[in-house]
Amino acid sequence: MTYVARLKENIRARGALCVGIDPHPGLLERWGLPDDVTGVERFARGVVEALGETVAAFKPQSAFFEVWGAAGVKVLEDTIRDAQAAGALVIVDAKRGDIGSTMTAYARAYLGDGPLAGDAVTLSPYLGFGSLEPAFELAEAQGKGVYVLARTSNPEGHTVQLAAGPDGRSVVQAIVDAALARNAVTGLDAIGLVIGGTHATVGADLAGFAGPILVPGIGAQGGTIAGVRALFGDSAAPILPSASREVLAAGPDPAALRAKAGLIRGGRV
Amino acid sequence: MTYVARLKENIRARGALCVGIDPHPGLLERWGLPDDVTGVERFARGVVEALGETVAAFKPQSAFFEVWGAAGVKVLEDTIRDAQAAGALVIVDAKRGDIGSTMTAYARAYLGDGPLAGDAVTLSPYLGFGSLEPAFELAEAQGKGVYVLARTSNPEGHTVQLAAGPDGRSVVQAIVDAALARNAVTGLDAIGLVIGGTHATVGADLAGFAGPILVPGIGAQGGTIAGVRALFGDSAAPILPSASREVLAAGPDPAALRAKAGLIRGGRV
Repeated sequence: MTYVARLKENIRARGALCVGIDPHPGLLERWGLPDDVTGVERFARGVVEALGETVAAFKPQSAFFEVWGAAGVKVLEDTIRDAQAAGALVIVDAKRGDIGSTMTAYARAYLGDGPLAGDAVTLSPYLGFGSLEPAFELAEAQGKGVYVLARTSNPEGHTVQLAAGPDGRSVVQAIVDAALARNAVTGLDAIGLVIGGTHATVGADLAGFAGPILVPGIGAQGGTIAGVRALFGDSAAPILPSASREVLAAGPDPAALRAKAGLIRGGRV
Repeated sequence: MTYVARLKENIRARGALCVGIDPHPGLLERWGLPDDVTGVERFARGVVEALGETVAAFKPQSAFFEVWGAAGVKVLEDTIRDAQAAGALVIVDAKRGDIGSTMTAYARAYLGDGPLAGDAVTLSPYLGFGSLEPAFELAEAQGKGVYVLARTSNPEGHTVQLAAGPDGRSVVQAIVDAALARNAVTGLDAIGLVIGGTHATVGADLAGFAGPILVPGIGAQGGTIAGVRALFGDSAAPILPSASREVLAAGPDPAALRAKAGLIRGGRV
């Protein structure tokens, strides 16, 4: 079963919402947890226990685990396993991007059979969309997915993403087109995109793109579900809005986390 | 003491060469090691024991450690410590890039006091040069360095890096200019650049840039020390050519590794 088929099934059964797992110092403090690896572990476990059976997907943010080195990465491993065991898909938000054998290693780490492999991983294309090829191949072979950063939610992104390539297309449009072309060849729609939910317009023509689109920036960054609907209209792509702080700040009470996730998913905040 | 001062001192004492630590399957096999975390550990230790007292810097490639999850990341921690203990600088080649509190976490992980912190880290600016600000601030505060990907050594990079921004400057030129401006304000030259050694021209005007420049692609990718000299001319920047496979394939014999590193450093291969 392909990643996109599993994603569509989870969205149908649980609604279209991905929740970030971002154990940053401010949230740890809010949850009454120490800013150390035990705090990170209790935070991540709390999020998965509260929401693992009700959200379509989790997006653990690798950085907050890497802060604590190998001990933190061990917590990330456990978080991925626990989230999958609860029926949620896991998108490891690692924004990796490199070339050649190094890119192959990142693919193996996050899309292979190792302890950090989730269902999908985010990738950063500064070295060119084509440099990510080893990850595309492994995702396709393994029934997993990738989300290539296209148009990110932050205000500084346009300096790179809206720059014009040699043929006049913007960087983001060239990435959309390349992802669409690849998915058309494979028929697997394993190549998804990250498009922030904070912009009034996508900044690229998405017509015909049917791979998954991850839409961060919902909630604290200013994006809304209504805004996402307006942004993507009747796109054929499975759209997965993602909220982090807005949900997580409702914790650690599990019922409060579930209530906030439900409100956001329903477009009521 | 700033990172750039320590780098210049190491280059003066040991010559200008950085050696990558890239335990990929092909090299592990060549060294007679298993493709598992024990192989990675023995490989990394072998490189550091052979070259730690003679090369200016090491550039461990995070991907090859992440393949093995927390166990691999533990080996990366140990490799960083061992390399620094031998007097080499450590540039963690992680190509991280994100926004806000996530970028702050990556900065803390690789430039703070934690187990994965080296002397410098590579950063990827797809989300905009400005998004990397938390890393710039921490590097400056800690006497450490960052190398922002500008023009990478691979053939696919130009699709993003040579695209033209709103003011007509290329993405790479805008990054060079922003790094130069930042270093001029701080006087610390903590912001370095990655510029691949495989191109005939840099593709950007580096005049006045005095931060460190990491130049990968020497050896197996086709770059040479003579080419690096031609590429950067009489630049004021400390230039650090970096070779990986070309050196590593000479192992596991320590004398052979040292001999090959010496030949490359001297521009004789």
